[in-house]
Amino acid sequence: MRLLFVGDVVGSPGRDMIKEYLPRLKDKYRPQFTIVNGENAAGGKGITEKIYRELLDCGANIVTLGNHAWDNREVFEFIEDAKYLARPGNFPKGTPGTGLVFSKINDLEIAVINLQGRTFMAAIDCPFQKADELIEEAKKRTNVIFVDFHAETTSEKQAMGWYLDGRVAAVIGTHTHVQTADNRILPNGTAYLSDVGMTGPYDEILGMGKEAVLKRFMTSLPVRFEVPKTGRTQLSGCFIDIDAKSGNAKNIQRMLINDDHPFLMD
Amino acid sequence: MRLLFVGDVVGSPGRDMIKEYLPRLKDKYRPQFTIVNGENAAGGKGITEKIYRELLDCGANIVTLGNHAWDNREVFEFIEDAKYLARPGNFPKGTPGTGLVFSKINDLEIAVINLQGRTFMAAIDCPFQKADELIEEAKKRTNVIFVDFHAETTSEKQAMGWYLDGRVAAVIGTHTHVQTADNRILPNGTAYLSDVGMTGPYDEILGMGKEAVLKRFMTSLPVRFEVPKTGRTQLSGCFIDIDAKSGNAKNIQRMLINDDHPFLMD
Amino acid sequence: MRLLFVGDVVGSPGRDMIKEYLPRLKDKYRPQFTIVNGENAAGGKGITEKIYRELLDCGANIVTLGNHAWDNREVFEFIEDAKYLARPGNFPKGTPGTGLVFSKINDLEIAVINLQGRTFMAAIDCPFQKADELIEEAKKRTNVIFVDFHAETTSEKQAMGWYLDGRVAAVIGTHTHVQTADNRILPNGTAYLSDVGMTGPYDEILGMGKEAVLKRFMTSLPVRFEVPKTGRTQLSGCFIDIDAKSGNAKNIQRMLINDDHPFLMD
Amino acid sequence: MRLLFVGDVVGSPGRDMIKEYLPRLKDKYRPQFTIVNGENAAGGKGITEKIYRELLDCGANIVTLGNHAWDNREVFEFIEDAKYLARPGNFPKGTPGTGLVFSKINDLEIAVINLQGRTFMAAIDCPFQKADELIEEAKKRTNVIFVDFHAETTSEKQAMGWYLDGRVAAVIGTHTHVQTADNRILPNGTAYLSDVGMTGPYDEILGMGKEAVLKRFMTSLPVRFEVPKTGRTQLSGCFIDIDAKSGNAKNIQRMLINDDHPFLMD
Ligand SMILES: [Fe+2]
Ligand SMILES: [Fe+2]
Ligand SMILES: [Fe+2]
Ligand SMILES: [Fe+2]
Ligand SMILES: [Fe+2]
Ligand SMILES: [Fe+2]
Ligand SMILES: [Fe+2]
Ligand SMILES: [Fe+2]
Repeated sequence: MRLLFVGDVVGSPGRDMIKEYLPRLKDKYRPQFTIVNGENAAGGKGITEKIYRELLDCGANIVTLGNHAWDNREVFEFIEDAKYLARPGNFPKGTPGTGLVFSKINDLEIAVINLQGRTFMAAIDCPFQKADELIEEAKKRTNVIFVDFHAETTSEKQAMGWYLDGRVAAVIGTHTHVQTADNRILPNGTAYLSDVGMTGPYDEILGMGKEAVLKRFMTSLPVRFEVPKTGRTQLSGCFIDIDAKSGNAKNIQRMLINDDHPFLMD
Repeated sequence: MRLLFVGDVVGSPGRDMIKEYLPRLKDKYRPQFTIVNGENAAGGKGITEKIYRELLDCGANIVTLGNHAWDNREVFEFIEDAKYLARPGNFPKGTPGTGLVFSKINDLEIAVINLQGRTFMAAIDCPFQKADELIEEAKKRTNVIFVDFHAETTSEKQAMGWYLDGRVAAVIGTHTHVQTADNRILPNGTAYLSDVGMTGPYDEILGMGKEAVLKRFMTSLPVRFEVPKTGRTQLSGCFIDIDAKSGNAKNIQRMLINDDHPFLMD
Repeated sequence: MRLLFVGDVVGSPGRDMIKEYLPRLKDKYRPQFTIVNGENAAGGKGITEKIYRELLDCGANIVTLGNHAWDNREVFEFIEDAKYLARPGNFPKGTPGTGLVFSKINDLEIAVINLQGRTFMAAIDCPFQKADELIEEAKKRTNVIFVDFHAETTSEKQAMGWYLDGRVAAVIGTHTHVQTADNRILPNGTAYLSDVGMTGPYDEILGMGKEAVLKRFMTSLPVRFEVPKTGRTQLSGCFIDIDAKSGNAKNIQRMLINDDHPFLMD
Repeated sequence: MRLLFVGDVVGSPGRDMIKEYLPRLKDKYRPQFTIVNGENAAGGKGITEKIYRELLDCGANIVTLGNHAWDNREVFEFIEDAKYLARPGNFPKGTPGTGLVFSKINDLEIAVINLQGRTFMAAIDCPFQKADELIEEAKKRTNVIFVDFHAETTSEKQAMGWYLDGRVAAVIGTHTHVQTADNRILPNGTAYLSDVGMTGPYDEILGMGKEAVLKRFMTSLPVRFEVPKTGRTQLSGCFIDIDAKSGNAKNIQRMLINDDHPFLMD
């Protein structure tokens, strides 16, 4: 059983990459399930219902989010009804949406968990404790559990990987928008990658116009961050091969599609 | 002209990897200059004179540091006389040591600049302004300038890459201890990699014992972080090919040596 | 019914002030209960069993803590048996100690709750949710509830004040070591003060030697913070008058004892 | 010679307090110079030219700012021409405006310096080094120097107080919006107060609607912070008596005007 995960889709350049490459990737590598992080899909900030449906139409089975989940207020209007949309599960009780969603195709079912780190991020509930809870709930339905851990620091991400090793199929990081090269199968069978990277502009800073970001760093003055509509783009993702029975991963393969890495697996 | 850069050497497991692989790497790939980040070389925290000399003896031409530069107080005793040791150059005026050092072999000379980010790190001087200053100074002696940018966030690192593109041979990140997969030559000729990764324990968290780090995340109680002396190890580095005349990079190649990536270039 | 609360006792200069003034204050103002924050009582960092007992012997009925609770490892050895010692209650489940303690004298009983903020502090459980829990538990025994909210920012402290207004007798802040002048009775009967201030050295920075702290701000180099043993000292506290039946506060009076404010109420 | 300093004016409720009380305070206490922090004067965020002029018309001689200086973009249009407007002086070279302004009445002249802290705030230039520079420049014209140090932590504020003791007439903190009770004359003659407090709504959180702020703390969801237009208000300030010749302070008096402290000095 194969999973495709594509990292933070940023604005229309990111969505264009999804439209162009998701069908080709599914055609060539035949993943049973495709998961896409869409926290930056709407102009770099949040997601709308239209974009959520567009991502599903392009071939995503499940869309995950992160700290930018709430940036577009429209999310509050449809998240409760969005069956395949996961927001970080460790937002406090009462938060709209859920951190655990399922997708089933024929006999195969996967659970997707979205969690958010706390180091240099908002003070929400403990992602480790919440992972325990959601995994217990997920295991009632399936052995195949995928975790998108949206976090800033490599230490918190590695900690989550080791914490869940052997209990889930994969712990894949998002949020830094830069793919890391540390893909591996941990000793007890969990696929791990600190960050899968982003999908969108290739010549900017995390997908936002680089002049503005640079000005911000150099002056500390307020600037408007925007996703440039033109320019070269990239897609970042990974494939994970899983033994559906045990829920253990057998292989994890990183993938970058950009001018320096044309369409083929790394 | 070829440079080898090896990322954050952590404790004795890291130094053992240096001893074992630096000679073999130099033998096989023939870099003219080797740079090693040693901010965690002494038990994970800082550096001593003995270890600094040991790194040079193993084949390093220049040793760089980072936020952990000062963790071992011994550094204050020898840093002023350590001709091939660079600490982050944007510590305020009056700080011992320097952020710009040179190494010369026959006709070839390189300048190595060490800078530290400020996002989620100490409030020191502006790394971008300091980069301008140090590059101007370096250019008086050589066109080949290597920058080790020790920073937490991918945004600040990418910002530095774009800021210096065309002015230095390479901007390579350190500090997160996880190698990123975004190695590329920027449009104006600067080699870029968000983080080169660490050298030391392979099955721990950033090189520190994983039980302690995990306990810290889960309880917020104080724990003692230590570098485990046993267990599998890794080395993280990259090679950069530079046109010595123009100071532009022609190629950047990442390298990981661990059980999942045995000794050979990625 | 009158309560005396004395803020963060720092090292031996702070303990000396307690020894000298607690008896005199109790003699003159006749509080039924005295609460002392002791998170810095042992050399500025944490608390020991000996010091805890010393504070009780000086007249404290209950000792509260804060983010420095765990700095002296000895605390782990006696906290479970220390009946009158409250640590921040929103440390995660499994943390030794408790955030809710009681003191009873004749017919009067008070509940003391200790909570810690999260803004610019450790990522622990939600102090607002935990407040709800602990208040519910406290109300089973008494209507008189005192809350020491150990937090960095005035916004989080005021938020807690308004959140608990009418449900507890007092929300008094600690941690910044500087007494604020905003003592008031909130509309529904809760006494509020953003910070009660510290007890210890008067001519240093938060009680720690000022040269070291200043060096730290100016250089970002590591320094050793120590509590100077000599020099002028101060005591910071407040008195709260409570209607024991309703648990509402009737009055809150700040108090500073130092060379600029000799022994008498402000 | 007497100075009146009024802390962070928040929105129209704050400006209304200025209109009502500044004339009365000047009438009764006869300060030669009045300084007002206006960083939140425009709807809680920044300042406009109209509001700047309004503050001067109400009797302010100089207006200071802080981290919110740039929140209202209009500031960039008039700050260069605003002779009596000081923004934090340690924003990097090239930032519009200045951190040092003067006011002269007959023979008396004062220099007002605005600086911003870095702990838990933006990474700008060192406020301590910048203080040295600006004081040297100010001393060319006058001995009477007032410093508004806009900072988050009590430690950084106290550090600045001790650093400048004997070199300026006063170091008064702003930014936390809560007046502290630690007014004193430091040993070498500088008046010090960690925070002067805010001017605006009395029953909200730092002047912003308390429901929104509380929701933010409890949910980490995005909320819109707004200054309530109705409700009780307060004014926070202090008077400083200075020996104009030496530039040393002789006395500092805090002042709060609200329903709990009607119009008279504390
Ligand atoms: Fe993202
Ligand atoms: Fe994110
Ligand atoms: Fe490191
Ligand atoms: Fe580091
Ligand atoms: Fe304290
Ligand atoms: Fe504290
Ligand atoms: Fe303010
Ligand atoms: Fe402010």
